[in-house]
Amino acid sequence: MAKPKKQPRPKAQTPKGFRDYFGAEVTRRRAMLETIAKVYHRYGFDALETSAVETVETLGKFLPDVDRPNEGVFAWQEDDAGNAADWLALRYDLTAPLARVAAQYRQDLPSPYRRYAMGPVWRNEKPGPGRFRQFYQCDADTVGAPSVAADAEICAMLCDTLEAVGIARGDYMVKINNRKVLNGVMEMAGVLDPSDPSRFETERGIVLRAIDKLDRLGVAGVRALLGEGRRDESGDVTRGAGLDEARIDIVIGFVEARRGDAAETTARLRELVGSSEAGRAGIDELETIAGLLRAQGYGPERAEIDPAVVRGLGYYTGPVFEAELTFEITGEDGQARNFGSVAGGGRYDDLVKRFTGQEVPATGVSIGVDRLLAALSARGEDVAPEAGPVVITVMDRDRMADYQAMASELRAAGIRAEVYLGNPKNFGNQLKYADRRAAPIAVIEGAEEQARGIVQIKDLALGAKIAQNASVEEWKAQPAQFECPRGEMVAQIAGRLGLE
Amino acid sequence: MAKPKKQPRPKAQTPKGFRDYFGAEVTRRRAMLETIAKVYHRYGFDALETSAVETVETLGKFLPDVDRPNEGVFAWQEDDAGNAADWLALRYDLTAPLARVAAQYRQDLPSPYRRYAMGPVWRNEKPGPGRFRQFYQCDADTVGAPSVAADAEICAMLCDTLEAVGIARGDYMVKINNRKVLNGVMEMAGVLDPSDPSRFETERGIVLRAIDKLDRLGVAGVRALLGEGRRDESGDVTRGAGLDEARIDIVIGFVEARRGDAAETTARLRELVGSSEAGRAGIDELETIAGLLRAQGYGPERAEIDPAVVRGLGYYTGPVFEAELTFEITGEDGQARNFGSVAGGGRYDDLVKRFTGQEVPATGVSIGVDRLLAALSARGEDVAPEAGPVVITVMDRDRMADYQAMASELRAAGIRAEVYLGNPKNFGNQLKYADRRAAPIAVIEGAEEQARGIVQIKDLALGAKIAQNASVEEWKAQPAQFECPRGEMVAQIAGRLGLE
Repeated sequence: MAKPKKQPRPKAQTPKGFRDYFGAEVTRRRAMLETIAKVYHRYGFDALETSAVETVETLGKFLPDVDRPNEGVFAWQEDDAGNAADWLALRYDLTAPLARVAAQYRQDLPSPYRRYAMGPVWRNEKPGPGRFRQFYQCDADTVGAPSVAADAEICAMLCDTLEAVGIARGDYMVKINNRKVLNGVMEMAGVLDPSDPSRFETERGIVLRAIDKLDRLGVAGVRALLGEGRRDESGDVTRGAGLDEARIDIVIGFVEARRGDAAETTARLRELVGSSEAGRAGIDELETIAGLLRAQGYGPERAEIDPAVVRGLGYYTGPVFEAELTFEITGEDGQARNFGSVAGGGRYDDLVKRFTGQEVPATGVSIGVDRLLAALSARGEDVAPEAGPVVITVMDRDRMADYQAMASELRAAGIRAEVYLGNPKNFGNQLKYADRRAAPIAVIEGAEEQARGIVQIKDLALGAKIAQNASVEEWKAQPAQFECPRGEMVAQIAGRLGLE
Repeated sequence: MAKPKKQPRPKAQTPKGFRDYFGAEVTRRRAMLETIAKVYHRYGFDALETSAVETVETLGKFLPDVDRPNEGVFAWQEDDAGNAADWLALRYDLTAPLARVAAQYRQDLPSPYRRYAMGPVWRNEKPGPGRFRQFYQCDADTVGAPSVAADAEICAMLCDTLEAVGIARGDYMVKINNRKVLNGVMEMAGVLDPSDPSRFETERGIVLRAIDKLDRLGVAGVRALLGEGRRDESGDVTRGAGLDEARIDIVIGFVEARRGDAAETTARLRELVGSSEAGRAGIDELETIAGLLRAQGYGPERAEIDPAVVRGLGYYTGPVFEAELTFEITGEDGQARNFGSVAGGGRYDDLVKRFTGQEVPATGVSIGVDRLLAALSARGEDVAPEAGPVVITVMDRDRMADYQAMASELRAAGIRAEVYLGNPKNFGNQLKYADRRAAPIAVIEGAEEQARGIVQIKDLALGAKIAQNASVEEWKAQPAQFECPRGEMVAQIAGRLGLE
């Protein structure tokens, strides 16, 4: 074999748009996922974990005209020794894999099938500040339940989940709308012809995306997109739907249809959808959902009908919902702003049909776990950083076994502990290390201590506190360094850590 | 826009070599990861989560088979509008990302840096029975600790971890060896020249992989690979290292050097490595590790020196270790066999150097979590299947709100509960559904029950037990279906579930 060529050193960096998570960042997220899973489980949802990799066909992201996958996914072609090989891709959400599972195992799964899933998803998109190409979702979906009682249940569960992870009632709102109502409005605006549903598809897509950008663009921006189009600050022009003013008014009327309470809002919507059958059916559904929620105690302080919520995805067929955090945070520009959406979902009755040809009703919600964590951080509700371990310093490198035994004893008592494993020569470095590890306590046992059968215990947490603001009396009452018999080490440390 | 061509229905299936995990399969794994993380954390290891995607450069050197670079990973090229773009790939282990992190953040991390990581890794390999292309690892590594005390600590922690997840002492063995000893033997066998370390690299790779296959091929198979090569059952020929019989004897002598206790084994190894400096240093290290472990109570019933363990990876530079389960399981062929290795690791002092040019000592272990779960399953130590939810049946579809309220009340009491959300028309289907969900209890409230202010509670778990083997007395003493006032529903169900 030829010797490999000498290669230049690789750069030590994450790929663009990806990042690393350290210590408490990891454990906080894990705890949040655990909390969410507990609520989902109590509602009867079962865990499902699919692999990160799916065929591009399953994801519905294959572009037949160019014979390659959509650019939004990370995809590659299987290597199959010259044979026609599948394109594989990283999942970009947890819904497409669920649709595949619901079709693949339809004989074996209970129906309805309630499942939850959590894990990373990947988007091949341009990264931006705080916007990564891998992030966590935590989804719950019900497959096989045609009734909007399933949608109402998901909305109630979403409220419970947000409260379980620490968002107080009053600090969030679950906003509910219905695509059927939007379709009714589209009929009235002349971009949906019930007798030929495929007409005006492009225009409807533009209308949907325009409404979805209301928060960012405001009403004027949305109006521009509904009409001739819009030029953004960079000069780029986004094509509009080409509606005239009267029709734009109808759509904007829909977006602004929210009134003081659910009854007034639905009354206003009834005016807007006029004779459209789809529109009226959608309003009936909204009323049923609101009624079910109210009956279970999820009143307008937690869930409301809001026609401005449409969700950007094309596949929704009925109710759609979104959880918005209503408190203000300080943005990177120093300006106060609403935190915005942390979860969303809706009914998608056609996704499983793609595989089986048979209609399978489905509805669900996806929580953006990383955004939710960011929201809690932005409010300063980070938990305290993880406590570091007790550090056993090394005074005599030939006595590692003794130091390891100390650490073992502490661990057996449930105390996080470690022996210093760097070069022990410079004792100052050992204490610097303990400091960097946020160690609450360091243990010192040199030859002298060993001869006397004692250890020195250095209470670093207390030391730091004393250094800041202790009176002489306090300092004398509880010294930050003291000695104790070796046999009492564990009990003394447990006491200092409040673990007695 | 042209209408998209009508596509054939996608096949609902996982890509070849990938699989889905349902319910208890997911929650059992999650619980095991949590248990392992707890032990790692108590030893002072901090969590790290890197993304699934790395540049191929970062992963570059660590491909497991040096003869087939790059094919072992799932890789694709970034799409960068015609510019030279990075190749990205899914991580195939958790070690290469750690080496990258240790280099990237070397100014900010404590040194030594103890970190643990858990999550899926991906291998672009031919799948086989029980062999998947995505599986979980749970690693702990110490970066920046040159002393073999770090290796001993990892071995002790591995013992604690296996016991924490339910492998009893006596049912596993941590086997320890040292690459330096193997190098000493290679010198003696004439395939390592200390004055020109790059000579015979290919031969040494063959020797290493041959020894690593001892379990599968037996001594005769290994001898063939050390010599002229080996033809397997399919007729494929694997090239051998080309050693003559005398040299093969030296290598086989090493593999079979294990004796009754550590002292005898190291004495035998000293004979084998003769004057090799590397070999003698390696034996000293083995003695230090064994001594440290013994002093902490990890004696030969849990950890032993075994020269037959070499680990297949090329990057190890010192101690290597492997945890083997020693109990027998029944294989798919009905034959009893040892379960084998569930974890492995060792010292790799050169991985971080690839990025920085500076030597950074490192050692660590990787637990194959899916294999460990399989081992517990093979022993019949599966936990019982998850308890299903209480199912509230739907007798009157206009009263969904009442049924949902029942489920809410149960959940508020910590009881898993759900309303039946399928078509309620056929009551038999509702009970079949409850059965399929392994529901312990079904609740029934029709018009008559409502009028009387009661509910019917059907104890399905008890019903199943009675159907199997109840006496008339038992049946009378605790009927499987009974009625109770609506207001007592939660208390009655909690009682039946043993939750009072």
